[in-house]
This record gives sequence, structure tokens and C-alpha cells, in this order.
Amino acid sequence: MKEPLLPIRYESGVVILLDQTRLPNEEYFYPVRTDAEMADAIKRLAVRGAPAIGIAGAYGICLAANASPANTGEELLRDLEASAKLLASSRPTAVNLFYAIDRMMALAKACAAGSAEEIRACLLEEAAAILFEEEAACKSIGEHALTLLHDGMTLLTHCNAGGLATIRYGTALAPMLLGAEQGIHFKVYADETRPLLQGARLTAWELQRAGVDVTLITDSMAGMLMKQGKIDAVITGSDRIAANGDFANKIGTYSVAVLAKHHNIPFYVAAPFSTIDMNTPTGEEIVIEERDPSEVTEGFGKRTAPLDVKVYNPAFDVTPGELAAAIITERGVLRPPYSESLRQTMGEENT
Amino acid sequence: MKEPLLPIRYESGVVILLDQTRLPNEEYFYPVRTDAEMADAIKRLAVRGAPAIGIAGAYGICLAANASPANTGEELLRDLEASAKLLASSRPTAVNLFYAIDRMMALAKACAAGSAEEIRACLLEEAAAILFEEEAACKSIGEHALTLLHDGMTLLTHCNAGGLATIRYGTALAPMLLGAEQGIHFKVYADETRPLLQGARLTAWELQRAGVDVTLITDSMAGMLMKQGKIDAVITGSDRIAANGDFANKIGTYSVAVLAKHHNIPFYVAAPFSTIDMNTPTGEEIVIEERDPSEVTEGFGKRTAPLDVKVYNPAFDVTPGELAAAIITERGVLRPPYSESLRQTMGEENT
Repeated sequence: MKEPLLPIRYESGVVILLDQTRLPNEEYFYPVRTDAEMADAIKRLAVRGAPAIGIAGAYGICLAANASPANTGEELLRDLEASAKLLASSRPTAVNLFYAIDRMMALAKACAAGSAEEIRACLLEEAAAILFEEEAACKSIGEHALTLLHDGMTLLTHCNAGGLATIRYGTALAPMLLGAEQGIHFKVYADETRPLLQGARLTAWELQRAGVDVTLITDSMAGMLMKQGKIDAVITGSDRIAANGDFANKIGTYSVAVLAKHHNIPFYVAAPFSTIDMNTPTGEEIVIEERDPSEVTEGFGKRTAPLDVKVYNPAFDVTPGELAAAIITERGVLRPPYSESLRQTMGEENT
Repeated sequence: MKEPLLPIRYESGVVILLDQTRLPNEEYFYPVRTDAEMADAIKRLAVRGAPAIGIAGAYGICLAANASPANTGEELLRDLEASAKLLASSRPTAVNLFYAIDRMMALAKACAAGSAEEIRACLLEEAAAILFEEEAACKSIGEHALTLLHDGMTLLTHCNAGGLATIRYGTALAPMLLGAEQGIHFKVYADETRPLLQGARLTAWELQRAGVDVTLITDSMAGMLMKQGKIDAVITGSDRIAANGDFANKIGTYSVAVLAKHHNIPFYVAAPFSTIDMNTPTGEEIVIEERDPSEVTEGFGKRTAPLDVKVYNPAFDVTPGELAAAIITERGVLRPPYSESLRQTMGEENT
């Protein structure tokens, strides 16, 4: 087993990024030295996955602060405002990115009376805190997930909700990666996840690298494996969980959940608490992004469908909460009915 | 709408083949003039699909007969024996190929007392009869299927069971192609069918060419469409139907059948009667071919998964008969329980 996967880390003034566009063929880390370079890395998907992008954005602010010639906090703040705008424009729909940048800027403003040097140090600490919080949340998700699983089980996952998209453990992959560290071993089937093949390119690579026994399949093979009795549990991430437990995730997740139900296999959703959106009552209200047809017709650099053929290419689907046996967050394992368990856990937060 | 699709036809001494390896980018017909050229075309998949290969084999014998300098039936028969061996070795597991070659050779033997010229004429008639029978069976499947469907429905299909694999109408695509001729129009979603993308490369091309309203999706999107109420019926082909109605078809068919069941959408199997194998009691006895991992890891000429990753790549899956609302053959629509309806139809054959 290699050292844990850290797709982003800060070392003596530079950020070391894993260039995810070169995976799975090349494990290439490279130094990012300026906020502009960081914005570019986010834009071209060298770093991807909501939590990872948030961390990248936070360190982008640190790089800008380091590069600024400002002596006073006021001067530095002016430089950082421009940098925040640049970084926020790199992925216009990434909520974690805006959240992380806002958090960094709020800190800088609060400290604006201090010296530039003091603010630089505070910002570095805050970025490290964001990274640490994400890592701790993933580890906690992994620990809670492990209470539902046991050594020797065979798991199925869809898309990539691993250390590449977050930091170190990921969400759906957290029990597998944390388990590998603790001597709890799973056999994992990874759906390749068409059209963009995150399962083949990222999940298979990440699990293989961590010494997890992983087997790649096409999305169409999951049902057959379940029928053969080869799958003990399914675990996926989620991009957004509604107040009733309905959840959006990569296209194909809904099919896997229905197949799991048909075969009486538990389906688990692993996601940070921040994914839960109590302002979205049900999955009906989640708008699904439709993406470019070329992802389906020439996703491999080669045209594999007739010219001008109509294509339907939704990026996500919505799975009814009742198909999930549990929602696993860093705060614990939630069970149905989710309207109640989600409200209750949220209530605890507010008390 | 263009003229009907004939992937193989005989014209003044040569066979005109559609080179399916060039689809969907190019509709390229080329002349095949000798048995060796025909064996090569079968080997390199220029012609594919069991019934189409059978027709190709039959015409391969005709080409050999035409080229032979023999004057007597006995002399011609000797030349044809070598040709039959060559053609049969081009696709070692193609039952329809052996059947067609055997049928042609049996005819030649029965006529061996006649002149070579007489036998040549008989062989051409027999090959045309095989082609005609296949076309008639497909048309009949289409007619029976149309009794289950109605104008304006939206259908989903998986893999390619169309005119390319058979002749003209195909099996699962027969109601769509025959319907288009008769003014009965369907909206069709075609699963791309990983790993080999027969849905994207062939079905989408074939339906688009015939003027059918076709939309391409990845296999993982079928469930979401069903949940949205967009699919009225599913129809696929089958490679082998057991005596109890369990059926083998392209990998992914089982998942689609379970999804259809979950959404109360009828799932129809369309296949020629010759696909039914009463010597196979249930799907349990159907052995599933596993294919090369590279189809999954570098199916498009570009590696899209880590080196040495384990891959499971079954070519087919088996769907329990109870998930099919009907099995449509050229002899009519069979309904569950299939143990009875299949035995009954078989019995009619023997009386």
C-alpha cells in the first residue's frame, strides 16, 4: 500500500496538486505557485470534486496573500478581493468553492486591523483547518460506515466519491480506504460510470493504489452480479440530499438502487452533512443538469455514434430516499423515515 | 426514408455486402467475388449477426460453385466440400452458419447426379430461399409485435437486434422498421450497450437511417427515463431461450428487465423460433461467455482504466422468463407461463 492519497497539500509556499486529468495513466503531482495557476487548475479539472475544490480555493487565497507586496492588512485585503473574484469564477456552480473563499475572506476582513504578515499566517491556518475538517469528516463517515459492514464483504460502488474528490478517505470509498488501513478488507466492484468513466478512471485507480481488491465492470453488469449473489451491499456518494431523504447523485445511481432493492441488498448513501439541503423538500425540486451530447457520442476521443443522432445526457438522477437503507454522514448513521431522522439531526445542530 | 436495409444481397454473380466495421461513420457496400473473400468478411465482422452470417455462408457456397471449372455434379461437389470447410471455419461458434452451409451441401449432394450447371442454379435458389425465409420471419415478428404496441408509444431497446444482424427488419427492431413503412411511428430510446456499443454504433444508425425518431442514451440512464414515465414498453432480442422462458441476451438486458418490472412497464422479447432451445430446461444451464478485459478498459482505442486492473466482462446475462410480458416469434405471441406456451407451440410443430 502506498502512502494515503492527498490530491492537494501545501508545502513551503507552494501547493502540490495531483493532476487528475492525467489519471489513470500517470500519477503526476505538480506545484501551483499563484492564485491564477490555481484558478486554471480548477478550471481545467486538474482538481475536481466539491470538497477538494473548496480546499484548492482556500489555498488559492493563501498563494495570493503570499505574493502580495502589501504591508498593511488594508492593502492586503484589496489584493485578496481581486483574487477571490478570480478564483470564484473558475467553476461557477461549485458551492464548496464559494463557501471556502467566503470563509477565507471573512477571516481576512476580521483581521484587517492587523499586519499583512499576521493575516498571511491566519489564512494559512484557516486553509489547513478547512482541509483538516474535510479529512476528519471523511474519516468519521468511514468509521460510521464500518459499523454497517464487516470484513470480507463484497461492495458495489458507482462513480467516484473517494479521496480524489475530497481529501484522503472520500465518502462512499471511506469504509474501503479506512478499512484497508485497519485490516478490514472488502472486495469492491466499481461501475465504470458512463459517460465520463469516473469509476474506471478514478475509483478503480484509487482503490487499486490503496491495495483494495477492486474489479471494474460496465454499468450494465451490476444487475447480473446482484442476481448471482455476489454483492453484499451498495454504497455511493450524493451531491444533494433533500429534506425527505431523496438524493441526487451521478446518473445511473437510481438504476443501481432499484436493482439493489429487487435483490434485497442494502443500499447506503455516504455524504458529508453539508450535502443535506433542508430547503429542498423532495427530490422533485432538484433540477438535473443536461450535459453535452458529445460525452456520449465521442467520449473516448473517437466518434462511436452516427452524426447528428439525438442524445439525452442528464448528469445526475434522483433516487427516492426509501430505496436507501441508511444515509451515512460524519455525525452518524441516519435511518428511514428520513423526514424525521434528518429533522432530528438538524435540530441537534440548532440546540 | 432511404430504401430498406439489406446488409447482404446477390447481384449478377457477386455478393454485395455492407461493411459493418465502417459503421456508423460510413455506409460502405462492397462486392465479394469468391468464397475466400466471404470467409474473410465473416471473420473480420464485416457481416455479423447470426442470421446474416448464415445467409453470407450460403452465398459463399454459391460463389464457390460459380468459380469452379467443374462440368459434372461429382466434380463440383468435391470443390464445394473444400469451400464448405473454409467458410465454416470463419466463425467457429456460429450455429446459423453451420446450418446454412449444411443445408446448401445437402442440396448439392442430393443433386450430384445432375450437371454442374443445374446444381449452380439450384444452389442460388436455395441461398435466396434462406434469405427470403429470414426476411419473412423478421417481418412476421414485426407484425406480431405491432399487435402489442400502438402508434405514438415510446420504446426502449438494448443492443442491436435489427436488420444489420438479420435481414431487413430484424427482431426487436422489426416493429419499429415495419411500423415506419406502415405509418406507425414510435419514439425509440437506444441503450448504447457497453462495452461494444452496438446500440450507439448500429441501432441508432439503423433506426436513424429508416427515419425512426431515435435518441441515444447510456445504459445507466434507462432507469431514470422509466421513473419519469417516458418509456411505454421495452423490446429486446435474445440469443437463446430456455424451455421455461428464461432467456440469454446481451449483458445489461437483465438490469433493464428488472427496472421495467419495478416501473410496471411491459418487457417484450422478440426472437426467431430457432432461438428457442427446448433441450435447455432453464437459464441456469446457459453458459455465459466471458470476453477480453480490453473491451472494457480500452474499448475505444484509448486506455480509460488503470493498467492491470481486474475486469469482469461477461458478454451476456440471463433474464428469468417471468420478467418478460411476452415472447414474440414469427409464429405468434407467447405468454407466460412459458413452460406451457413454449411446449404447446413446439407440439404444434411436431403434429
